[in-house]
Amino acid sequence: MKKDNIRDLTIIGSGPAGLSAAIYASRANLEPLVIEGKEPGGQLMSTSYIENWPGNEKILGPELMSNLKKHAKSFGTEFLAQSVVKVNLLEKPFIINTDNKHEIKSRAIIIATGANPKKLGCKGEDEYWGKGVSSCAVCDGALFKDKEIVIVGGGDSAMENASFMKNFTNKITIIHILPELTASYSMQKKIINDPKIKIIYNSSVCEIKGNSHQVSSISIMNYKTQTISELQTNAVFIAIGLIPSTKLFKDQLELTEYGHIILKNNTETSIKGVFAAGDVADAKYRQAITSAGSGCAASLDAERYLKNLED
Amino acid sequence: MKKDNIRDLTIIGSGPAGLSAAIYASRANLEPLVIEGKEPGGQLMSTSYIENWPGNEKILGPELMSNLKKHAKSFGTEFLAQSVVKVNLLEKPFIINTDNKHEIKSRAIIIATGANPKKLGCKGEDEYWGKGVSSCAVCDGALFKDKEIVIVGGGDSAMENASFMKNFTNKITIIHILPELTASYSMQKKIINDPKIKIIYNSSVCEIKGNSHQVSSISIMNYKTQTISELQTNAVFIAIGLIPSTKLFKDQLELTEYGHIILKNNTETSIKGVFAAGDVADAKYRQAITSAGSGCAASLDAERYLKNLED
Repeated sequence: MKKDNIRDLTIIGSGPAGLSAAIYASRANLEPLVIEGKEPGGQLMSTSYIENWPGNEKILGPELMSNLKKHAKSFGTEFLAQSVVKVNLLEKPFIINTDNKHEIKSRAIIIATGANPKKLGCKGEDEYWGKGVSSCAVCDGALFKDKEIVIVGGGDSAMENASFMKNFTNKITIIHILPELTASYSMQKKIINDPKIKIIYNSSVCEIKGNSHQVSSISIMNYKTQTISELQTNAVFIAIGLIPSTKLFKDQLELTEYGHIILKNNTETSIKGVFAAGDVADAKYRQAITSAGSGCAASLDAERYLKNLED
Repeated sequence: MKKDNIRDLTIIGSGPAGLSAAIYASRANLEPLVIEGKEPGGQLMSTSYIENWPGNEKILGPELMSNLKKHAKSFGTEFLAQSVVKVNLLEKPFIINTDNKHEIKSRAIIIATGANPKKLGCKGEDEYWGKGVSSCAVCDGALFKDKEIVIVGGGDSAMENASFMKNFTNKITIIHILPELTASYSMQKKIINDPKIKIIYNSSVCEIKGNSHQVSSISIMNYKTQTISELQTNAVFIAIGLIPSTKLFKDQLELTEYGHIILKNNTETSIKGVFAAGDVADAKYRQAITSAGSGCAASLDAERYLKNLED
């Protein structure tokens, strides 16, 4: 940190984008601070093995994130295990306030707050959250050995959840709102011809019911037949997409209609000195390796921005 | 490969971008072919340890590339140890011809041919290439133990070369055409105050001389004083930037004035079905991790393109 107590660079978020930015920035002697947020390590912390981090044929998500954090620490990155509750990007230096009442002044910021799972918004979802309703099969799946379970969604993460749940049970139903799956070919292939897995198309969950301690059934609306049916189930895993974590920035930065930060020249937001990387600004690729690449790019862009400030 | 002998996807180049694309594409069952080119593994093959591949605090460049290749092979990527001599991107399917007279037809192509070191273009450079003139200190530096050596350039790779050559000799001179170094802060710092290293600014090498077997001296033009001086040296390492490898594509794809492939929507070239990733299209970041991220993105874009062809 400089003598005036103003940091050069603060990174908000600690997934692949935030930590790759931290590795580059700390190696460049920018002495970055990483504010880790409520879910340190990001979405990969709730996966098991991943097979698509180039160079590692198979690595646990949390192990990869631990390697990235260690790497950033080795160059001197500081970590703050707090969450940001407020930012002021309209003045310079920028001001960041955390839930532990820390105030941080910073000349440049990299936003790498990622994205969070969408919810269904149906009756019973909040009541039974953690009582059978979950967005993370890898975290909670083992609780449902040999039980009936439902997965909602038709994309890659729904397929991953289904594939993972086969370790525990043969009674798996996927409920998907569209007439066909949207997952990538390799993910679909594993699921679609699996006799253990039933797929209900054109449908969504309209109510989650239980005995107030645990989910016991759901109501399913079929849009094609316009009928509602009941299904016995002990768990509902929701995998219907992600919402970018941009609530903090919505009145200050330009966002898309879905809430993603709009970027120009790769990593620049609508405010000079504020950069973004990873899923918070990416609705298209959302891979660990693409996030890491964009984190690196944001750090190089921030370094160039700070150098120009000095001149 | 499909029954009609037309491949879905061919990847030209085997650096971080090409191999990351191959990992993603083969996992998605596109059965990609990687044409490795004259320098399999790309620029990292001529580095020693790298410290900025996120998650690996220190890894040999060739070891990282070997890991990436093994990863791509594990999903069934095919490799062809040949070089492309001609492409026809103006017809569909695209046609690729190799130096071993192979003809490959492909519905989609990812170009990941990278970039190559620039040359000085001065008298004696070609005559003494490999006899003291080199673009790769890591490859050839050990030949010059305790000898006088010169490094030409002021950017990161010149600094890396200088830093590496300190393992072998104390007699290092950097010759840089500008009045100050252009390398990043962290790289400059290691070099600029080092008493072992002399820096000559505002100057370039205008002739390389020797005894026809080995470099013995160079002539240096100082642009500020407009004088030419002589310097005894046994080696000249040239690190003045990169030229994207786009000669094959120049009449068919839109390129920048420096020869980089122009991209839109992240990885699309000016011809639908032809994608590009890595240094061949990136004049700005040029890192292994940014190349890997863009290779992954190109593969996902190619997958989407091929899926739409089928519909």
